[in-house]
Amino acid sequence: MEFTAKQIADMIGGRVEGDEQAQINTFAKIEEGRKGAISFLSNPKYTPYIYETQSSVVLINEDVELTQPVSCTLIRVKNAYESVAKLLQLYASMMPKKTGIDPLAFVSKSAQIGENVYIAPFAFIGENVKIGDGSRIFPHVTIYDGCQIGKNVTIHAGSVIGADGFGFAPTASGYDKIPQIGIVVIEDDVEIGANTCVDRSTMGQTVIHKGVKLDNLVQIAHNCEVGANTVMSAQVGLAGSTKVGEWCMFGGQVGLAGHLTVGDHVNLGGQSGVTGNVKSNQTLIGSPVMEPGVFFKAAAIMKRLPDMYKEISALRKELEELKKTK
Amino acid sequence: MEFTAKQIADMIGGRVEGDEQAQINTFAKIEEGRKGAISFLSNPKYTPYIYETQSSVVLINEDVELTQPVSCTLIRVKNAYESVAKLLQLYASMMPKKTGIDPLAFVSKSAQIGENVYIAPFAFIGENVKIGDGSRIFPHVTIYDGCQIGKNVTIHAGSVIGADGFGFAPTASGYDKIPQIGIVVIEDDVEIGANTCVDRSTMGQTVIHKGVKLDNLVQIAHNCEVGANTVMSAQVGLAGSTKVGEWCMFGGQVGLAGHLTVGDHVNLGGQSGVTGNVKSNQTLIGSPVMEPGVFFKAAAIMKRLPDMYKEISALRKELEELKKTK
Amino acid sequence: MEFTAKQIADMIGGRVEGDEQAQINTFAKIEEGRKGAISFLSNPKYTPYIYETQSSVVLINEDVELTQPVSCTLIRVKNAYESVAKLLQLYASMMPKKTGIDPLAFVSKSAQIGENVYIAPFAFIGENVKIGDGSRIFPHVTIYDGCQIGKNVTIHAGSVIGADGFGFAPTASGYDKIPQIGIVVIEDDVEIGANTCVDRSTMGQTVIHKGVKLDNLVQIAHNCEVGANTVMSAQVGLAGSTKVGEWCMFGGQVGLAGHLTVGDHVNLGGQSGVTGNVKSNQTLIGSPVMEPGVFFKAAAIMKRLPDMYKEISALRKELEELKKTK
Repeated sequence: MEFTAKQIADMIGGRVEGDEQAQINTFAKIEEGRKGAISFLSNPKYTPYIYETQSSVVLINEDVELTQPVSCTLIRVKNAYESVAKLLQLYASMMPKKTGIDPLAFVSKSAQIGENVYIAPFAFIGENVKIGDGSRIFPHVTIYDGCQIGKNVTIHAGSVIGADGFGFAPTASGYDKIPQIGIVVIEDDVEIGANTCVDRSTMGQTVIHKGVKLDNLVQIAHNCEVGANTVMSAQVGLAGSTKVGEWCMFGGQVGLAGHLTVGDHVNLGGQSGVTGNVKSNQTLIGSPVMEPGVFFKAAAIMKRLPDMYKEISALRKELEELKKTK
Repeated sequence: MEFTAKQIADMIGGRVEGDEQAQINTFAKIEEGRKGAISFLSNPKYTPYIYETQSSVVLINEDVELTQPVSCTLIRVKNAYESVAKLLQLYASMMPKKTGIDPLAFVSKSAQIGENVYIAPFAFIGENVKIGDGSRIFPHVTIYDGCQIGKNVTIHAGSVIGADGFGFAPTASGYDKIPQIGIVVIEDDVEIGANTCVDRSTMGQTVIHKGVKLDNLVQIAHNCEVGANTVMSAQVGLAGSTKVGEWCMFGGQVGLAGHLTVGDHVNLGGQSGVTGNVKSNQTLIGSPVMEPGVFFKAAAIMKRLPDMYKEISALRKELEELKKTK
Repeated sequence: MEFTAKQIADMIGGRVEGDEQAQINTFAKIEEGRKGAISFLSNPKYTPYIYETQSSVVLINEDVELTQPVSCTLIRVKNAYESVAKLLQLYASMMPKKTGIDPLAFVSKSAQIGENVYIAPFAFIGENVKIGDGSRIFPHVTIYDGCQIGKNVTIHAGSVIGADGFGFAPTASGYDKIPQIGIVVIEDDVEIGANTCVDRSTMGQTVIHKGVKLDNLVQIAHNCEVGANTVMSAQVGLAGSTKVGEWCMFGGQVGLAGHLTVGDHVNLGGQSGVTGNVKSNQTLIGSPVMEPGVFFKAAAIMKRLPDMYKEISALRKELEELKKTK
């Protein structure tokens, strides 16, 4: 597919500066630009590249003032990042979409598969699983018996939905398994990354609500509930029975203890460790978590702890001297 | 299957309060109760639900006093949690168990598979692998050549047993691989979660002893040894050659450095980082680890570090003033 | 294969002490030695085992002085660890190597596969993927469409190359997916462990340069770049667009925030958390990272924080007393 700068500008409501007939047929990062490519400039850190880029066209915010002439054609837009996202979506919507059940997939006879579903080679769909319309299941995904997947759900390669929750009862000689007879429910519009695990419930359901996005290598334990539109970065782990609200954002490698309740719109910085309930509308970081202002100050002072320790000893000594000589 | 409250009470040594003929055919969480379901009340936090639950029967501890009438039938037992675990085990034991090697599994000709083993579609069993009686290997599990799996072992989807340990020798131009010619031995009654990795040894064996339970996404490096009945939560990582004793419990995301020795009955809190040997019978938390009492006090004071820092400076200044005026 | 002590000594330039005709046919750890095995002694901690080992031959450094007679034959070498690595490499090079595409692998018709490549059962190779000569792709590896794998690359079981980067744009009602139309490029001589994820770029390439070694369960996000000969231990996570230099070494469970630049020869201790750029030739540890000397001192003093807090309060009180009595 080939488009002119003018055609692109019309699609996204932008204004061309330069050659309206400039031809583009691909995307490129501005620092890796090449003839025929469209790039974008959003982060000011990358501004110097606009004077050297080989890309034919660059999307740029209306209000950016350039101090030198450029050889590329510009398309001025309100928000270059949003515009490129929109163009990528248009581009992706024009690509042919794979649908259908690949003959190399394993789909149980009792599974109910919706319309326009893609199930890749080596995907495993257990008994009585339901998968809604338009969902895409990539290679090596395992969906255990009885789990329910909504519409327009994407599950990337290697993720495991509905393995047994980690429940054992200690005895004198070892552990007895507590059977996990519940299921996992994944609602509509959820995207799950690669090699992520969502365990089935002991009884009832582990629920991933509508619009949730889970990155790679995430662990969601049995009986958890993740609220609508919550986003979790890679390697996050939730222990059993923890409930997370809507519109939360968790950075990478965050860990939450079990049986907690986290409110809506909670942001947790990377590597945070949460051991108690969290109210809505908070941003926290650290292990255990605290407010970011406090965390970064405390973290900076951590390095001075040895000096502080020495100074306290010195103060004590000098104070005792002073007391004596009084 | 349908049972009466009386039949259930007889199975677990309980006493019915209410309708002995109440029919149940499924389990439900007390807060998601429905007609025909049995629920349990163990955690006092959930007590309010017993007055509203739609479940037909609820297991409850003998000594719980209810302050209002309930519409469900109660079965009074010594320990409601243990009783429900027992019922779940009875229930699971009545379910048909899958056995046999699925035609879509890959099992090397030289592998030795015991009796009543289940090997799922897309499981990969390498050359000269041994799998003991009654073990269950779920989809997308990879067992590399030569590894030995005991009896009644469960390995959930996507786990990898016996990939090469991470061993490389630096040279001037890059790294030379140190071949990993050892194996992994997994003893009887071990359960391994989904997408967990246990690496083969450089030489000799990486050993997971009898009754160990590993959750999802756990990393056990080459030459490690995990003692009998030790339990590790999700995303725990052991570096190479570390030996962990028996009956330990590690919380999620714990990390242990290499070449360490950890004793028996050691409990580590979530996200702990262990860089030295640990003696038996200790509970530790933090990175680096310390005693929980100290950790939680220190963590609480962390937030006051900036104030402490200022106060020390103020004390210094005032002390110097005082010295002058003396 | 069977060799004499003399033959082994000749291969690695060592000197035999004892029976030159001692036969060996396998390797064993010194503490698990047995007749017919060769072991090595490198770590002084293991010295006592040399007096009891059942191994027929032991590699030992030239300069180690033994205080008692030994029953095994010794081969004296300059560096026992390097010598055993060399022997293991010789041994591995004599083993037959699997090559070819297993009939149970899925390889797209448009994929270009080099010579002497091994592709295991249940590996998935997407459209237009290129795999260079001599590379080995283990079971359950997924390589998404368009990704490029160099020569002599090893990818262990369950790893996922080229799943979508984690990019979403918030809207009033949820998140819109930002299509990820870039690829992953893995250069020559890279080894990737089991269940590791390398995400495709939004546009352009996520690049793993020549000679990089990634352990198991590692997360490399979209648009990242990992420099030549950098080594990352298990469960490390890089957020999006972060660039890491050459010859770095990251311990287990390290996390890096997005859009960072890390120089060459940077060492990060286990569980480090990096939130800013890092210059070359540094060793750091902690979350946030600091110099190891400072970190270990500060960590040791952490435990005394409660006492420090009390002491500061006491100093304040006593100072106020002193002021009054002046």
